[in-house]
Amino acid sequence: MSSSPQPLYFNDLKVGDLFKTGSHEVRTEHIRAFATEFDPQPFHLDEAAAARSFFGGLAASGWHTAAITMRLLVTEGPPLAGGIVGMGMELRWTAPCRPGDRLHVESEVLELSPSRSHPDRGVLLLSSKTVNQNGVVVQDLRAKLLVTRR
Amino acid sequence: MSSSPQPLYFNDLKVGDLFKTGSHEVRTEHIRAFATEFDPQPFHLDEAAAARSFFGGLAASGWHTAAITMRLLVTEGPPLAGGIVGMGMELRWTAPCRPGDRLHVESEVLELSPSRSHPDRGVLLLSSKTVNQNGVVVQDLRAKLLVTRR
Repeated sequence: MSSSPQPLYFNDLKVGDLFKTGSHEVRTEHIRAFATEFDPQPFHLDEAAAARSFFGGLAASGWHTAAITMRLLVTEGPPLAGGIVGMGMELRWTAPCRPGDRLHVESEVLELSPSRSHPDRGVLLLSSKTVNQNGVVVQDLRAKLLVTRR
Repeated sequence: MSSSPQPLYFNDLKVGDLFKTGSHEVRTEHIRAFATEFDPQPFHLDEAAAARSFFGGLAASGWHTAAITMRLLVTEGPPLAGGIVGMGMELRWTAPCRPGDRLHVESEVLELSPSRSHPDRGVLLLSSKTVNQNGVVVQDLRAKLLVTRR
């Protein structure tokens, strides 16, 4: 578990390294505001419509969960030198995110691949699970991140 | 190319069906507002810092591009019965999204898999490319969507 404020370069990382963020509370008004702007579907906006939907109740847009995850990673996740720059990823929403949920992110270094073409860079495959206050994983992300080599 | 306002059920879709949305302009103030809330890294917030970064100039957060893509799909994409409900996806950001870019989304039905356990549902594999005003693909998304069967 790292909580170092010093920037982490590609060379500093090891497969199996773990990172855990603090938590962020998701409120109804945030769910509605994000959905109004980016995902205006009834199950993200209206309690009654959501109760009748696949979700069985108001749920945050998955893209909102993804954006909150990014905020937690940027502000409290691995302090990668050069920032958190995603190249590609696999993303799954595994449970609904509900009003009042407190989300945190648990990350693990899965693979480290030095770049052949750019000796000053490497690619980090990072697993980041977004977990609610009951320990339920609401989002499972595997992202390839570009990381600066020392 | 479909522009039907009638809801599309799983049974109405065919592999190879195409959908194209109108365009959405991405302004500097939107890039900064999204980044301030969800992805506060210098290359999404500050011109000078961005010029010195990997991006070589101010660029939208990839999650902002993803959120705009969702808005375009929900409001102008395939009018799926039951809404656009993502289960899992692969996502790549293939070029920076810059201030002033006008993005639209081009989608194609890649696969259709009836659900064995839920005869009232099917899974649609939809490719959605987010394209700027110069025809450059800035985001490549392949999403598995849950679709209601008639």
